[in-house]
Amino acid sequence: MPDQGKLTFIVGGARSGKSAHAEALATALASPWTYIATAQAYDDEMRERIALHRSRRGEGWTTIDAPLDLAGALEALPDNQPVLVDCLTLWLTNHMLADHDVGAECRRLADVLSRTRGPWFVVSNEVGQGIVPDNALARRFRDDAGRLNQQIAAIADTVLLMVAGLPLKVK
Amino acid sequence: MPDQGKLTFIVGGARSGKSAHAEALATALASPWTYIATAQAYDDEMRERIALHRSRRGEGWTTIDAPLDLAGALEALPDNQPVLVDCLTLWLTNHMLADHDVGAECRRLADVLSRTRGPWFVVSNEVGQGIVPDNALARRFRDDAGRLNQQIAAIADTVLLMVAGLPLKVK
Amino acid sequence: MPDQGKLTFIVGGARSGKSAHAEALATALASPWTYIATAQAYDDEMRERIALHRSRRGEGWTTIDAPLDLAGALEALPDNQPVLVDCLTLWLTNHMLADHDVGAECRRLADVLSRTRGPWFVVSNEVGQGIVPDNALARRFRDDAGRLNQQIAAIADTVLLMVAGLPLKVK
Repeated sequence: MPDQGKLTFIVGGARSGKSAHAEALATALASPWTYIATAQAYDDEMRERIALHRSRRGEGWTTIDAPLDLAGALEALPDNQPVLVDCLTLWLTNHMLADHDVGAECRRLADVLSRTRGPWFVVSNEVGQGIVPDNALARRFRDDAGRLNQQIAAIADTVLLMVAGLPLKVK
Repeated sequence: MPDQGKLTFIVGGARSGKSAHAEALATALASPWTYIATAQAYDDEMRERIALHRSRRGEGWTTIDAPLDLAGALEALPDNQPVLVDCLTLWLTNHMLADHDVGAECRRLADVLSRTRGPWFVVSNEVGQGIVPDNALARRFRDDAGRLNQQIAAIADTVLLMVAGLPLKVK
Repeated sequence: MPDQGKLTFIVGGARSGKSAHAEALATALASPWTYIATAQAYDDEMRERIALHRSRRGEGWTTIDAPLDLAGALEALPDNQPVLVDCLTLWLTNHMLADHDVGAECRRLADVLSRTRGPWFVVSNEVGQGIVPDNALARRFRDDAGRLNQQIAAIADTVLLMVAGLPLKVK
């Protein structure tokens, strides 16, 4: 496996294989592996998805839940260990629903990620390639998610776009 | 034209030029060419689109309709002939609307395609790069389509992402 | 900076960094720079976005508004000067809302762009990679935008797909 640099950013659409690819990249490195989950189980559909991801990861992973304080969770990590953050768009959703200052939160996260201290793999969704959404909240989310993805891609060492489960190297 | 391998998988958004590019790849090879259509004409919009595709293809093509039994249609084909399957997302829609076991159908299709017996060109839609859809059926379709695309891309020899009518090689 | 050819076409999703990248490419060349804006300020959200883009561009730019007669505006330009057209999907929307013959307008625009007379940078949105929209107008827009993008990409010297603010070379 080629050197991924320190920060690898993996973007892609729904069911494009982002998480599985990020896990494969992380587990190609020596354990222990840390999984930072941003999902909050609002409903059964989400609970099911979380359980599916968790069962696929299997042994050797430590899971940390960080639906809001992702920057704090990252800062508390030891150096030089593989870390998977899954995913930024859910984290952003959580902050929007909590009516937090999204711009400030994104800057704080970008600041921590710009000081990545190991092979960190960060997953995010591409949500801007469909028709303009009808409702204003969806449009704001789409804008904020796009801006966040740009911020993180700018500081990442490697950026991958997932297409049908395959990585396309963007950076 | 470079060797395409046996199975070429062509994914892309709506009106990204998937069908036209697949047809160009197929007709660059010696005829006879077989077109497997999965579309069902539910309404005028779809009827118009089917007619447009058919008129563009012109002479030298044999068209087989396989809205549901795509695996069976592929198995019945002779070896070593260019075949275009257009498209997997419509085929998936047909099975969902008929309330069939989508997982089982996808596995059966992937199994047949893993034993591709000629230059086969399979077209599918990317539907996961917009905002999360409001309704549960659209979300399920998006998930199933994404998983199917991953399955087929994994066994394909060549995977192309169409962008504004141009192919971007993913694999 | 490598030679961009004469016509550079920049496509991407919402908030993928299309405008900023196009501006960076244009301003890497000697001024004067011309910005052709196709946006019409229907509401506050759009007015805000227009103001944001305008403030980012800063000094050295001449702005021409061409919400409908983009072809005419391009034909009136002097030779060999950097021009940024932002963006084709808004221009298409304006023609659709005015109930004009979209096919004819697209052909006229493609004709002018096929005779590009300088380093012209044209921005457009990718809108076809989400779920099929519910309403017929959105589907028609998606189809027309996809076809227009194909037309322009076919005549462009360079085609870039923006992903999280980074350009992926398609042509």
